[in-house]
Amino acid sequence: MSGQMWVRIIPFIGSVVALVVALVFSLLVKNKSKGSKRMEEISRNIFIGSRAYLNQQTKIMLIFMVVLCILLGIMVNFGYLSIVSIPAFISGMLFSILIGYVGMWISTTSNAKVTSAAKDKGLGEAMNIAITAASSAGMVLAFGVLLYTAFWFNILFWWYGKSSPDMIQNLSQVVNVSVTFVIGASFAAFFMRTGGGIFTKAADMGADYVGKVESGLKEDDYRNPATIADNVGDNVGDVGGMMADSLESWLGAIIAAELLGFLAFRNLAPVMNSVLLPMLISTAGVVASIIAILVIKLVIRRYKENATVSKLTATTLSGLLITVAGIIIITYFIVKYTMGPEYNFLFHASTGGIVAGFLIGLFTLIYTDSRYRPTRNIMESAKSGPATYVVNGLAYGMESTILPALTIIGTMIFSFFICQGGSDFTMGLYGVSMAAVGMLAVAPFAVTIDVYGPIADNAGGIAEMAELPPEVRKTTDKLDSVGNTTAAIGKGILIGSAAVTALALGQAYFSQVELLKPGVVLDFIKDPMVLSGLFIGVIVPFFFSSMLLTAVGNAANKVVQVARRQIKGILSGKEKGDPKEFITIVTKSAQRGILIPGIAIFVVPTLVGIFMGPGAVIALIMGTLLSGFAQAIFMANSGGAMDNAKKRIEEEGRSGTEEHAASVVGDTVGDPLKDTVGPSMNILIKLLSTVSIQTVVLVVTLSDKIFNL
Amino acid sequence: MSGQMWVRIIPFIGSVVALVVALVFSLLVKNKSKGSKRMEEISRNIFIGSRAYLNQQTKIMLIFMVVLCILLGIMVNFGYLSIVSIPAFISGMLFSILIGYVGMWISTTSNAKVTSAAKDKGLGEAMNIAITAASSAGMVLAFGVLLYTAFWFNILFWWYGKSSPDMIQNLSQVVNVSVTFVIGASFAAFFMRTGGGIFTKAADMGADYVGKVESGLKEDDYRNPATIADNVGDNVGDVGGMMADSLESWLGAIIAAELLGFLAFRNLAPVMNSVLLPMLISTAGVVASIIAILVIKLVIRRYKENATVSKLTATTLSGLLITVAGIIIITYFIVKYTMGPEYNFLFHASTGGIVAGFLIGLFTLIYTDSRYRPTRNIMESAKSGPATYVVNGLAYGMESTILPALTIIGTMIFSFFICQGGSDFTMGLYGVSMAAVGMLAVAPFAVTIDVYGPIADNAGGIAEMAELPPEVRKTTDKLDSVGNTTAAIGKGILIGSAAVTALALGQAYFSQVELLKPGVVLDFIKDPMVLSGLFIGVIVPFFFSSMLLTAVGNAANKVVQVARRQIKGILSGKEKGDPKEFITIVTKSAQRGILIPGIAIFVVPTLVGIFMGPGAVIALIMGTLLSGFAQAIFMANSGGAMDNAKKRIEEEGRSGTEEHAASVVGDTVGDPLKDTVGPSMNILIKLLSTVSIQTVVLVVTLSDKIFNL
Repeated sequence: MSGQMWVRIIPFIGSVVALVVALVFSLLVKNKSKGSKRMEEISRNIFIGSRAYLNQQTKIMLIFMVVLCILLGIMVNFGYLSIVSIPAFISGMLFSILIGYVGMWISTTSNAKVTSAAKDKGLGEAMNIAITAASSAGMVLAFGVLLYTAFWFNILFWWYGKSSPDMIQNLSQVVNVSVTFVIGASFAAFFMRTGGGIFTKAADMGADYVGKVESGLKEDDYRNPATIADNVGDNVGDVGGMMADSLESWLGAIIAAELLGFLAFRNLAPVMNSVLLPMLISTAGVVASIIAILVIKLVIRRYKENATVSKLTATTLSGLLITVAGIIIITYFIVKYTMGPEYNFLFHASTGGIVAGFLIGLFTLIYTDSRYRPTRNIMESAKSGPATYVVNGLAYGMESTILPALTIIGTMIFSFFICQGGSDFTMGLYGVSMAAVGMLAVAPFAVTIDVYGPIADNAGGIAEMAELPPEVRKTTDKLDSVGNTTAAIGKGILIGSAAVTALALGQAYFSQVELLKPGVVLDFIKDPMVLSGLFIGVIVPFFFSSMLLTAVGNAANKVVQVARRQIKGILSGKEKGDPKEFITIVTKSAQRGILIPGIAIFVVPTLVGIFMGPGAVIALIMGTLLSGFAQAIFMANSGGAMDNAKKRIEEEGRSGTEEHAASVVGDTVGDPLKDTVGPSMNILIKLLSTVSIQTVVLVVTLSDKIFNL
Repeated sequence: MSGQMWVRIIPFIGSVVALVVALVFSLLVKNKSKGSKRMEEISRNIFIGSRAYLNQQTKIMLIFMVVLCILLGIMVNFGYLSIVSIPAFISGMLFSILIGYVGMWISTTSNAKVTSAAKDKGLGEAMNIAITAASSAGMVLAFGVLLYTAFWFNILFWWYGKSSPDMIQNLSQVVNVSVTFVIGASFAAFFMRTGGGIFTKAADMGADYVGKVESGLKEDDYRNPATIADNVGDNVGDVGGMMADSLESWLGAIIAAELLGFLAFRNLAPVMNSVLLPMLISTAGVVASIIAILVIKLVIRRYKENATVSKLTATTLSGLLITVAGIIIITYFIVKYTMGPEYNFLFHASTGGIVAGFLIGLFTLIYTDSRYRPTRNIMESAKSGPATYVVNGLAYGMESTILPALTIIGTMIFSFFICQGGSDFTMGLYGVSMAAVGMLAVAPFAVTIDVYGPIADNAGGIAEMAELPPEVRKTTDKLDSVGNTTAAIGKGILIGSAAVTALALGQAYFSQVELLKPGVVLDFIKDPMVLSGLFIGVIVPFFFSSMLLTAVGNAANKVVQVARRQIKGILSGKEKGDPKEFITIVTKSAQRGILIPGIAIFVVPTLVGIFMGPGAVIALIMGTLLSGFAQAIFMANSGGAMDNAKKRIEEEGRSGTEEHAASVVGDTVGDPLKDTVGPSMNILIKLLSTVSIQTVVLVVTLSDKIFNL
């Protein structure tokens, strides 16, 4: 037992190390210069706007939380759910919100420092500050995930241990309750990511339309209050929302693997370690990420004076490779010493997941980077106008779904059969979940690079708004493009891991149903209910996409109205711009936009379950997973490629031409696809699974009653 | 047996009646005036262009046919297929091609007559000619389907009857071989519809870009050879391709129902009649359509002098209602007298299908007609530029998938359970196929209205090109809009029936597999191969869409090049335009564009079957069906709504405004979605099922060998 005690303590140690690294990095950034008073003021305004948005959003989320807690309470009252689910759910939501605030705080307090360094010290030092700040965000996430999962695990294990000495039964209850905090985290992430996505794009469209087209102000003009909102959007959507998103992905992968590990090892010796293994691999990811970050910081320091974009890009890319290699090596030893060499196949499954994630990342890069054929062809098509540009962008986006889908299929088959799924079904499922955990162990490094992007982007915005010399903007543009390659790969890894996590969660749901009601038929030919569930599942992403796209449109309309009135006042000198009022209004309409999707996520699987049976729910989950995955990649890559094609046209100095105008239209079409719908799909497919797991007892009981009427 | 003989003869009688009506209608149109010499010449050029396209396309299809016959021969040689499949396949392809030619011939020889009537006799007579010509196309299709299915049925039954007196065994062989001619017809339809779709849009984009933007010619200018090609596109895509498409849908529904009817009634008395029932319901559709057409012709004649758009629209709509009511009433008696009152549930299933088809049609209308909210909102969004227009168009297109999907789900569940599928599984499947047959019985009338559209459209083009007074164009525009409401509903019915037919075909495939290898597991959780098949199936429509959209883009590029050179020659007076050379080039690149999709349709299900087993193929079929159905509706309605919003903006006299420019971009994005990708999806989902059925023996045998290696 003492060996096991050690194993249980390792994630805590990992979390403490992550916290220390995060604090040290924060301190390193803390005392850097914020530049001129004006720069500081702009940065401060972005911070205030971001905080206003998050406050408003949090209020609405808290209302939702109370309503959901009442519903959960009713379910607890009727015995459909354990009482511990309620605090678990609450803590998951609050934790996700907290992570969103912290991420936003880190990026909004470091952006001006990056601008200042770009102005006074050049590319190397600017990169150093940006990556250090971003690393502290990645480390905070790692700290949170490790501490949170380990804490709940130990608390719950102790709690159930008090009333019963049966370890197996206690473990079962622990992993079942753990699902609930993933729902909390997922639900909050859905709000933050989707709301943030709607906000960003609405602000973006509003700022451009009213500022540039109607009022003749130039891009990022200080007098346009919507410009601040545009920069706010980056911090609440691409930093806060993205971090909440990564949190729920990571938590989801860990908990699904814990659940499936428990089921696979229920009657085997290393059952405790099989449940702990996902946390240990995550700890390996944290350690490997820290090593990678330290290495690239050293290299950047060496380059400081003569840093170039290509050198720095190579550096961040090697950081990713170091992380991947590190995880593989450490995992090998973890599996060997905690599970024993006879379970070496778990290491293979996890490695398969890591490699697959990296491959999907590469495919994302190929389909969205302007060095490769797809984006170049989209650029070419700008010559025959906006329509061909958009059609081409959509076509390549659709094409880009094929290779990632085949990779996921390959990973699933590989990790299932390598873990003897042919003869031991639950072991095979555990193998699939190991692949997801392996992919997501890269998260601390991937999130670092993902946070780095908006910081560099904001730094550029501040340079413009503070009217610094054009060289500064050029330096921040270089800074921005340094992270692009690595971020594209990282984004691909996160999309891939979402799919595999959802797969594992769906399988976990199935296992839950099997326990409650063995022998559920999942044959989509023999049972029309299963086929119907599958059909509804395939349609769900279309429903969500349409709701979110419409919400962006409506919110943009409101942005235009508010900005129009404010700018009129500002230009006539009668009023001062009020970014806060403006932001509150957009926030409200963004939140209203996701109200129906937010409710639907709970209602659809529950209704399908009650009226069509639990088999239909599993089909629903799988249908949503497959169709949602395809749509997520389609939309993310369509938008990404159209965006990068436009950027390249600008880099080649062709701004103002017909081609550029065509690419601007294309980019505007692609923006909500890429930044609002695409990332929301990832959360949707997982949230649907976790909600289904939550309501499984309710569904099985009520559907039995209805079918036996 | 004599009662059965009568039942077997009824479809022949129906086909003769349809042929007579078609001939009478052709004669009625034949002697109408073609107007001036110039009008006749333009019409002739459109005909020559269309014929050139079809000739070129037929050549390539024949090459494909030879290659496929060799492959089929190899399969026959190794015992994977019956020898009769080869002539069945060939006849299916040739028949589909023939129908395409006939449809094209009818529309290209009547278009100028409609223009002439619009010029000299007004709206009523123009409508009368157009609807009469279109009716003869609908009747030719009906004649073909009834004759062809009845002929093959009786020939095969006689052929197998020679060597064995066992009726049950003979019937089994008859229905199995019948699938092969559906493949032939489907494959030809895929080429004609997809190739035609690529052609139309490439010609459209080329004509607009080179003619209007580059050369300053006005729309439909006679000197622009691409204008002729644009009108050719209507006849080869929207008439020829659409008729081939309807043919294969109808044949597919009948044959799937025959197969499932045989399986359900194998051991029951009315087995012969259960196989004949789909043909009888189709005959009912022909009779009801003839009645409806005669009624609306009478009404149009009464209106002749004071015809208005709203009166005529109401007339075509009542025609559709008469057809639907007629089919329901006749089917009631057919089921009662051929199957007996105890099988009355088959009538309910068929009626459910008809009602569902009509509902899906109504949803299509609501989402694409400018009288309703979605299209009006898209119009509104033109105020903030092309990007919001497109985003809104895509959003409503996605939303529009929900109600049709729920309708299909409802139909499936209803027809399965009303036919006692809960206790008798195969009877339930037969019920689902009855719903498909019911929906498709409306085809003769729906096709009539669908052919009417391009005829009216062409009549307008001829009026422009012949520089007739603007009133003529106004009359033909009214003519065009008369059919829109009914056509939208008809289109919805055809899309819905494609889904239910594909469902029935997929279930038929499953039944085939069950016969060869009982107990195939179709559990997408327990067997990762099944889930993988499902995943590949969901991705297939993305793959096809991307290939087709890219093909349109490439073909449009070539159109631009050729048109550029020709127009230069024409304007300088040195050369005469050569629509034929031009058409040949586009045709070639269109055919090249569908080469890979055409091959993939055969390769994907076969490879999936061999390497992942027949369970994965069924999952593949279902995945493609669900995802393809959603994409088909999404794309058709996105494009339709953006098109109609643009038309409405023009009708409101806002051509030339910023809003109109935005809507033109949106329309151009929507065009290939609506006219190339959307309709092709319908064929794809069925073709995949029929190909799978064809290769089932091969797949089961080879996959067994591989799994037992």
